[in-house]
Amino acid sequence: MTYQAPITEIGFALDAIAELPAIAQLPGYEEATADLVAAVLEEAGKLAGEVLAPLNHPGDREGSVFENGVVRTPDGFQAAYRQFVDGGWNALPFDPDYGGQGLPWSLATAVQELWQAANLSFGLCPLLTAGAVELLQAHGSEAQKDSYLPKMISGEWTGTMNLTEPQAGSDVGAVKTRAKRNGDHYLITGQKIYITWGEHDCADNIVHMVLARLPDAPEGTKGISLFLVPKFVVNEDGSLGPHNDLRCVSIEHKLGIKASPTAVMSYGDSGGAVGYLVGEENQGMACMFTMMNNARLAVGIQGVAIAERAYQQARAYAFERVQGRSLDGSPEPAAIIRHPDVRRMLATMKARTEAARALAYWTAAALDRTKAEPDDAARAQAQARLDLLIPITKAWCTDIGCEVASIGVQVHGGMGFIEETGAAQHFRDARILPIYEGTNGIQALDLLSRKLLRDDGAAMTLLIHELRSGLPEAPELRAPLAAAIEALDDATAWLLEEGGKALPWGAAGATPFQSLCGSVLGGWLLARSAAQAAKGEDKAFAAAKLKTARFYADNLLGEVAGLAEAVTRGAESTLAFEDDDF
Amino acid sequence: MTYQAPITEIGFALDAIAELPAIAQLPGYEEATADLVAAVLEEAGKLAGEVLAPLNHPGDREGSVFENGVVRTPDGFQAAYRQFVDGGWNALPFDPDYGGQGLPWSLATAVQELWQAANLSFGLCPLLTAGAVELLQAHGSEAQKDSYLPKMISGEWTGTMNLTEPQAGSDVGAVKTRAKRNGDHYLITGQKIYITWGEHDCADNIVHMVLARLPDAPEGTKGISLFLVPKFVVNEDGSLGPHNDLRCVSIEHKLGIKASPTAVMSYGDSGGAVGYLVGEENQGMACMFTMMNNARLAVGIQGVAIAERAYQQARAYAFERVQGRSLDGSPEPAAIIRHPDVRRMLATMKARTEAARALAYWTAAALDRTKAEPDDAARAQAQARLDLLIPITKAWCTDIGCEVASIGVQVHGGMGFIEETGAAQHFRDARILPIYEGTNGIQALDLLSRKLLRDDGAAMTLLIHELRSGLPEAPELRAPLAAAIEALDDATAWLLEEGGKALPWGAAGATPFQSLCGSVLGGWLLARSAAQAAKGEDKAFAAAKLKTARFYADNLLGEVAGLAEAVTRGAESTLAFEDDDF
Repeated sequence: MTYQAPITEIGFALDAIAELPAIAQLPGYEEATADLVAAVLEEAGKLAGEVLAPLNHPGDREGSVFENGVVRTPDGFQAAYRQFVDGGWNALPFDPDYGGQGLPWSLATAVQELWQAANLSFGLCPLLTAGAVELLQAHGSEAQKDSYLPKMISGEWTGTMNLTEPQAGSDVGAVKTRAKRNGDHYLITGQKIYITWGEHDCADNIVHMVLARLPDAPEGTKGISLFLVPKFVVNEDGSLGPHNDLRCVSIEHKLGIKASPTAVMSYGDSGGAVGYLVGEENQGMACMFTMMNNARLAVGIQGVAIAERAYQQARAYAFERVQGRSLDGSPEPAAIIRHPDVRRMLATMKARTEAARALAYWTAAALDRTKAEPDDAARAQAQARLDLLIPITKAWCTDIGCEVASIGVQVHGGMGFIEETGAAQHFRDARILPIYEGTNGIQALDLLSRKLLRDDGAAMTLLIHELRSGLPEAPELRAPLAAAIEALDDATAWLLEEGGKALPWGAAGATPFQSLCGSVLGGWLLARSAAQAAKGEDKAFAAAKLKTARFYADNLLGEVAGLAEAVTRGAESTLAFEDDDF
Repeated sequence: MTYQAPITEIGFALDAIAELPAIAQLPGYEEATADLVAAVLEEAGKLAGEVLAPLNHPGDREGSVFENGVVRTPDGFQAAYRQFVDGGWNALPFDPDYGGQGLPWSLATAVQELWQAANLSFGLCPLLTAGAVELLQAHGSEAQKDSYLPKMISGEWTGTMNLTEPQAGSDVGAVKTRAKRNGDHYLITGQKIYITWGEHDCADNIVHMVLARLPDAPEGTKGISLFLVPKFVVNEDGSLGPHNDLRCVSIEHKLGIKASPTAVMSYGDSGGAVGYLVGEENQGMACMFTMMNNARLAVGIQGVAIAERAYQQARAYAFERVQGRSLDGSPEPAAIIRHPDVRRMLATMKARTEAARALAYWTAAALDRTKAEPDDAARAQAQARLDLLIPITKAWCTDIGCEVASIGVQVHGGMGFIEETGAAQHFRDARILPIYEGTNGIQALDLLSRKLLRDDGAAMTLLIHELRSGLPEAPELRAPLAAAIEALDDATAWLLEEGGKALPWGAAGATPFQSLCGSVLGGWLLARSAAQAAKGEDKAFAAAKLKTARFYADNLLGEVAGLAEAVTRGAESTLAFEDDDF
């Protein structure tokens, strides 16, 4: 159940796919030299492998516990979090004016993968803090930034996102939590659910970013405002004042990520929690959108991470577990890695994981370019690419996380079903990923309506063009990839035509379309990885990359035909069902 | 979290797919009249829905508990089991000479689905007993049958299968448990793991069927003998004698089916447990094969059952949960069933579940014909068909169980990840199904080597011929099904040629081939269901069946192209991986 940071793989993906060396040429990112990147990955790998990973399984068994209004994280989490903060890890991608290191998001994304692979429950704490920091960086007042950002960027204080209420999940516009103007602040009243790390014992203060509604706000998403609501009110001198009028009511009993406390939060039981408006009144949703790309990328990375973790564990087991004889006829019992079906499972895990990593890092590179490209047009182009890739990355990488974790259980046979083995934990932990931060169905609708139809297919057409011009030369990769891109092009054309005219039709095929995009991109990025690796000096590494790309093209990419059919032909039969037919 | 037995669906599948009315014409099955079948389903449905289903979620929370050598099943299980036995449910398909009712296996399979859907953990107890009963019916001595069968068929005593040891899982030949001749019995010594319902508090006696090795036995599977080892030795007069020298050492802490005690059993700590040889010495594996088809079908049915349960729960939630607005532009919040993506998920669950049920019942019908066809040739043909279908049914139906349970979680959104909701339990419970009773990878190897290569494709060719001649007339079903059958034919031809010559190549594609078989059969059987339903009087029912078949053909069947490619083109790239490439 150990985890070893795959530094070589990650370094390669950063270079070959994210093109980090080119990003490090952009203004503001000059510090991301090859040496620094190597040092960061090395040190982060140690913390992930030696400190966070060993806490993963015990953390699952113990879980976070809620007693008498207090949340106790599992044994070792407090100390690990202290070490994480002391190492300066929380500050990696943030504004240097407030103590951040201003490093590229692609590097921060790679480091993020290490935390999440080592310990998904632990990793959620800084993941949520990052979202809150971004919101404040983008929309906070100068005073708010001065008061909160340094402690949040260092990680001494953590952050949360308070969106969901019992009646307001995917439909954020249904939020009922109220905010009342009260001098220089607001009083917040209401209940929020599913608040990740909403209450815990690892930091001095918790800064809640809360969506609420003013008394005179318009209905729906246009009447939602964003408030900063600290657990302890912060005094003018920066010291901590009284406990705010908010409390954790309970934490959820969940399928997985049990060490991560998922809180029900109550605000204003005694008249109203002190909250500070972030941005403008009624502009809360717009504020949320600024952090959404980033948060969704981070969840996509969690999918990559859990896949990597599950793969490492299954690989170790396959080489160690002796059972049956090899088909080559040797009389001696053999490790199960000798069985072709086990090799197929491991190759699937490896190919899917590397494809998902490539996609996520490619997306992270686009994020960096939206921030640092000096040229307006280049920045806009990067933004369009990023917006297009985000739902695909979030959904596909998290689906892959679940798929790979499930194969990991299967490789273990009966042992996989026993909790002590640890494979089952990855399977349970991974299952949240296609749900939170916008279900994968919501991502698909976002992809269809905001990313494909809104610009009449411009960004997608550009992407398909790039895929076509970047086809690999090796014929065994080129032919299946060309066919797959053709299928993507056909499905896209159909959606722009039929699915645009009749939105339910497009929506019925949105999820298969999203999977189709992911599958094609994954295969294409693996071929690109193989081509880039061929330029390097490590011939064994290059050969493995080529084998992985071929395996994907031969064994997995064939799924695109069915997915494209589901888009273009599936809507009619889906929508033919009447309610009574179910 | 309620479960309502889908009597109409099940009755239809029995008539239209298993052709139970024709089976009831076969000698020995005459009692299975339409009236009796209806009454059995009705009463079984009540017990399943009203007694077993309500215990499912509490049983998961409480789990079976091991303390001081004793296993305590969850609250309510003892009483429910008593009710099950008193109702005569355990006796359904067994030999009337020993108190069985001698009803067709297809009917017993349908009833089995009800128990398993209501409560998978509970259902495992009679499932294992059935396996032990079959072994004794086929291989027990007259004295053994007289002593054990009546109580086991009634269910007063339960049965277990003791195959697995720490070093002997898929490789049963590696069994080390020893048996020593000792007068009229044997003394058994050794440890067994993963013994389902190996110890519990629901029955007066537990009859363990134990694989062990005699001192002079040949190595491997040819040196394994089968022993009957009762928990309490049975006196000549049938009363229970002393506790045998066997004990439960512990029970496993598992991902799912927590109410089902999975025991580590130790035999012979005080010199040897009294065991009785079943069949001949060293013929234990041959004995096991006689029950294997049946047990694998039963596990396939568990896949159907958990899918049905998950579908019912997701459907109820989708009609009840209000979130967001319908795409038709209505301003009011709508139930999520109004969202096309949710309809797609539910339609997928429904189509997969019905396809899996049709496949399992079709297989059950073949089982009946192997037992009751008066004509030797017809019996042999049924046997070949059954042998071919069994691995496909076990693997595909259990994969579907996992897939559908996972979609069920997704339909619930965040609620799906909270254990109180119950959707997560189905997801956890289902995950054992592709593992036990021969992993699905083992099934695939069985399909390839014993069922396809051994008869040089004869049974498969016959099946493909039947599929072709049974193509539906409706063009929207006919075209995709014809293409899918073509893909199956191509993959079969490739395996008989290339995969037969080089076994590792065939083995590398065995799992995708198995999925391909399942997918084609599922689509074909749904089309057949639609055609049969069209002959009936319920037009709404017939319309829903046609929609389901079309949905499957348009949205799911497209997967066959990729699966066929993975068989014919995938092996080379799978086997190209060297150990160091992983």
